[in-house]
Amino acid sequence: MERLRQQLEFIIEIDSMKNILRRTLIMDGSRRENDAEHSWHISIMAMILQEYSEGETDITRVIKMLLVHDLVEIYAGDTYAYDEQGALDKEEREIRAADKLFGHLPPDQQQQFRELWDEFELGHTLDARYAACMDRLQPLLHNYVTKGHTWKEGNVDSAKIYKRMSVIESTAPRLWEVVEYIINDSIEKGYLRK
Amino acid sequence: MERLRQQLEFIIEIDSMKNILRRTLIMDGSRRENDAEHSWHISIMAMILQEYSEGETDITRVIKMLLVHDLVEIYAGDTYAYDEQGALDKEEREIRAADKLFGHLPPDQQQQFRELWDEFELGHTLDARYAACMDRLQPLLHNYVTKGHTWKEGNVDSAKIYKRMSVIESTAPRLWEVVEYIINDSIEKGYLRK
Repeated sequence: MERLRQQLEFIIEIDSMKNILRRTLIMDGSRRENDAEHSWHISIMAMILQEYSEGETDITRVIKMLLVHDLVEIYAGDTYAYDEQGALDKEEREIRAADKLFGHLPPDQQQQFRELWDEFELGHTLDARYAACMDRLQPLLHNYVTKGHTWKEGNVDSAKIYKRMSVIESTAPRLWEVVEYIINDSIEKGYLRK
Repeated sequence: MERLRQQLEFIIEIDSMKNILRRTLIMDGSRRENDAEHSWHISIMAMILQEYSEGETDITRVIKMLLVHDLVEIYAGDTYAYDEQGALDKEEREIRAADKLFGHLPPDQQQQFRELWDEFELGHTLDARYAACMDRLQPLLHNYVTKGHTWKEGNVDSAKIYKRMSVIESTAPRLWEVVEYIINDSIEKGYLRK
C-alpha cells in the first residue's frame, strides 16, 4: 500500500492550492482568485476554445498540463506576471519547489508530472503553447470584467500586456483578435494605461 | 464572431462556480470549499488514481466529466449529499439549470456538455462510475482531515457514508479499502457516529 499512501498524501498536500492567492479578482470583484480555481477555469476553457488553436492539439495533454502547471506555487508562491523583482529568482524557486512537491509521488508519476510541468514551462510544443494561451487569456478576461483591477494595482501599461499575451498571436490568431479588442476597449474605458 | 462571443460569455458566466459553496471545508479547516476548487481537485485525483479503476477508463472523458459535472449548481445551488429534503427536487432543479446554462453555448458544444453531464449523472458507463469515485472520495478525505466537520454538522452516521461511497466498492476495490479504513478510524476517533 506504500504507493497508494504516497498518492493520497500528495492529494492531501495539494489542497493548499486553494490558499495560493493570485492577483486577479474573481469576476464579481469580491475577492482574489486562488490557484485551484484558476486551474479549473483554464482547463474548461481549453475544452471550449480548442477549435481556435492553429494545428492539431492533444486536449488530454493540454488539460493535464493546465491542471498541474501551478502546483509548484504551493511551495514557491504565486509570482505576479508583471513583478520584475519576483521574476528574477522565479525559475530557481519553482524548480526547487517542483523537486520537492513532485518528490511526494511514486517515481513514475513524479516523472509524468515533472514532464508536464517542464513542457508547459518551456512552451516548445503546440500543446504547451495552446495551454499557455488559456493561462494568459483567462486573467485578461478577469481584468476586463473587473475594470482593470490588477492592471491599475500594478500600474501596468498596454505594451506589457501585449508582450505577455503574444503567445496567443501565433498560436490562436482568432483569439488574438479578442485580445486586441479587449486591450483597446480597456484603454478607451480607462481600465488600462496606453 | 457570434460563436466565439457565445463561448466567451459562457466562460465568464461559469466564473460563478467560485462562489458556489459546498459543505466541505478545505483541509486546513479555514473555510468552506467551492465548486471550482472541488472540480479541479477531483480532476487531478483522477489522473493520479486511474490505475485503481477496474477495467479501462478513458481519462480524457473522465476529466471532462469532472470539470463539467457541477456546473449546473451555478443555477441549481449545491445540494448537500445527505440533505434528504433537498434531494427531493434536486433532479428537477438541475435539469432546468442544465437547459439554461448549456443553452449559452453554440449547439454542438451545448450537446457535448449536456452529454458529459448526463453520462456522469446516470453513472452507467465505467468512465462515469470512476469519475463518481473521485467525487465521493475527495470529500471523504476532506472530512477525515478536518476531523469529521461536515459529518458532525449534518449528524451523519457511518451507514449513510457507506451507502454514499458504494460506487467505489465495485469500481475501484483498492480504494474501497481506503474508504473502509477511513470510516473505521473516524468512528474510533469520534469524527463519525457508527
